[in-house]
Amino acid sequence: MKTVSDIGELGLIERIAARLGSAAGGGHGPGDDAAVLPVTDERLVYTTDVLVEGVDFDFSYCSGADVGWKAIAANASDVAAMGASPRWSVAALSLRGDTPLELVDDLLDGMVEAGRRWRIELVGGDISTAPAMSVAVSMLGEAGAAGPVLRSGSRPGDRVCVTGSLGGAAAGLVALRGSLPREGAVERLCVRHLRPTARVEEAHALVEVGPTAMIDVSDGLAIDLAHLVESGGVGCSIDPAAIPVDPDLDALGSALDPLETAVLGGEDFELLFTIPPDGVRPARKRLAKLETAVTDIGAIIEGDRTIGDRSLEDWRRLGWEHLRVR
Amino acid sequence: MKTVSDIGELGLIERIAARLGSAAGGGHGPGDDAAVLPVTDERLVYTTDVLVEGVDFDFSYCSGADVGWKAIAANASDVAAMGASPRWSVAALSLRGDTPLELVDDLLDGMVEAGRRWRIELVGGDISTAPAMSVAVSMLGEAGAAGPVLRSGSRPGDRVCVTGSLGGAAAGLVALRGSLPREGAVERLCVRHLRPTARVEEAHALVEVGPTAMIDVSDGLAIDLAHLVESGGVGCSIDPAAIPVDPDLDALGSALDPLETAVLGGEDFELLFTIPPDGVRPARKRLAKLETAVTDIGAIIEGDRTIGDRSLEDWRRLGWEHLRVR
Repeated sequence: MKTVSDIGELGLIERIAARLGSAAGGGHGPGDDAAVLPVTDERLVYTTDVLVEGVDFDFSYCSGADVGWKAIAANASDVAAMGASPRWSVAALSLRGDTPLELVDDLLDGMVEAGRRWRIELVGGDISTAPAMSVAVSMLGEAGAAGPVLRSGSRPGDRVCVTGSLGGAAAGLVALRGSLPREGAVERLCVRHLRPTARVEEAHALVEVGPTAMIDVSDGLAIDLAHLVESGGVGCSIDPAAIPVDPDLDALGSALDPLETAVLGGEDFELLFTIPPDGVRPARKRLAKLETAVTDIGAIIEGDRTIGDRSLEDWRRLGWEHLRVR
Repeated sequence: MKTVSDIGELGLIERIAARLGSAAGGGHGPGDDAAVLPVTDERLVYTTDVLVEGVDFDFSYCSGADVGWKAIAANASDVAAMGASPRWSVAALSLRGDTPLELVDDLLDGMVEAGRRWRIELVGGDISTAPAMSVAVSMLGEAGAAGPVLRSGSRPGDRVCVTGSLGGAAAGLVALRGSLPREGAVERLCVRHLRPTARVEEAHALVEVGPTAMIDVSDGLAIDLAHLVESGGVGCSIDPAAIPVDPDLDALGSALDPLETAVLGGEDFELLFTIPPDGVRPARKRLAKLETAVTDIGAIIEGDRTIGDRSLEDWRRLGWEHLRVR
């Protein structure tokens, strides 16, 4: 089985260019010092996200394509949370020398697949070796006339809403790590973790309804909601009973507390947004066309920041953090 | 000594935001899902470059600030080689949990310092832990009315020119690894390796003279020249005696062959460009104002691709490659 070391950097770059050239179909792809972007919208947003082997993913339970997909999806979710449309991406791959070329191909395929899903062109990259694989992707999006939507615009009286359901991705990770049989609801949880959906179409539809602030739920509801209210200088009062817990969590029985998983679990990549009360129904209606639920979970207030009778700070202390937990 | 693990991801993000907020001075900095860019030029170029501990750098001979500087400089060099002006950057940092916070501060300071040098705003980032540090930076540049300058435009009859001198960065690495006393010419070689200069101002001046193709010398003259002539579908005839070998190489005596080091050594970040013969003098004149030499090292021809009596392919086989050599 040929590895990264066997063909060297130049060989790998040629292999990747050939693979992306046939798959991604972009006219502005790799092959120069930098990619030239055909920008037509001057309102650009720019973000980056890195996934590291052994920390953010583990090949004992995921494939190269899963990693490639998630690297693109996580960035696309950040762009979507700005109310923008993801357009271009570059990737810096750090690969172990003993990485089989098939795994590299698989990684690229996952990136291309996600790129196709949200119409993102992979226009460039860089490669180095490393003791563990890491995939650092950056992404540019176009904000359009209505965007960008910042985190900071919430006003007292706004409703706090979230798309889809929460807790599924964290539960999926538990199922994958515990090697639970992948069928039915458990399989759906695993897919939720391995192949997250960036709410790109939903963000696009929401922007037209006029959210006052928006963020994606990547670190967990408690943390991301804290970011939102802190940057807006407002408080919030969230009703725990209203939080849309992923119904598939039932499949794990008592292994996980559903509410805690929904509040603290990361990587659901749902959109958390605030909107004046009369915007909730139009938002729900628009996203119904995409078969995505919108749930009103509480209010922006002046003063305290709570989910139920616990402060966000208390929830946050229990929360999921890359560096301290792992 | 406090480490990355001690303060966790959120603590680290706050620390970095505070440091960048006071130092980088950008109004579009970290703090939302993505940065919003005030784009005024629709001709954008986009690139990425990753540096990995133990592969691209080693803390036995360099500081955090050196790494941060080089991460920015390498990207700025790619942008410059497109004839564009670097403007915005995002960085994905993968850090070992036991990394002292002082080292992280130092890394950021190096990035900020390089950003100031070339007027690049650091507008966002991401953090993860990893078994080895890696710094993946992506960068956006504005190409202006005259750009971008691709690699592919060389025509037979063009002269092949290079800025500055070659071989110094590779020699500096040898000096650093060999722990040679850092004084005089040796010190200059070390600085050349640790604190490379992206030829941003030079590229800007060159674009107005009309280079037909341009690339930066990051992998070594042999490899980067091969990229240039291959993408142009042309040949080249380079006079080895004309190649501007860094005069400081003399300080290493017989430890390195000067010509081979100049042809094969990477990371000099000089500009290699082709230009019609009557453009050489104006190019030289313009760059003289920046105190940067322009050396005519040969011609673009139809047919063979040679430096002296060796083909580029033969040189290339001897060449410096991240993955195979290390």
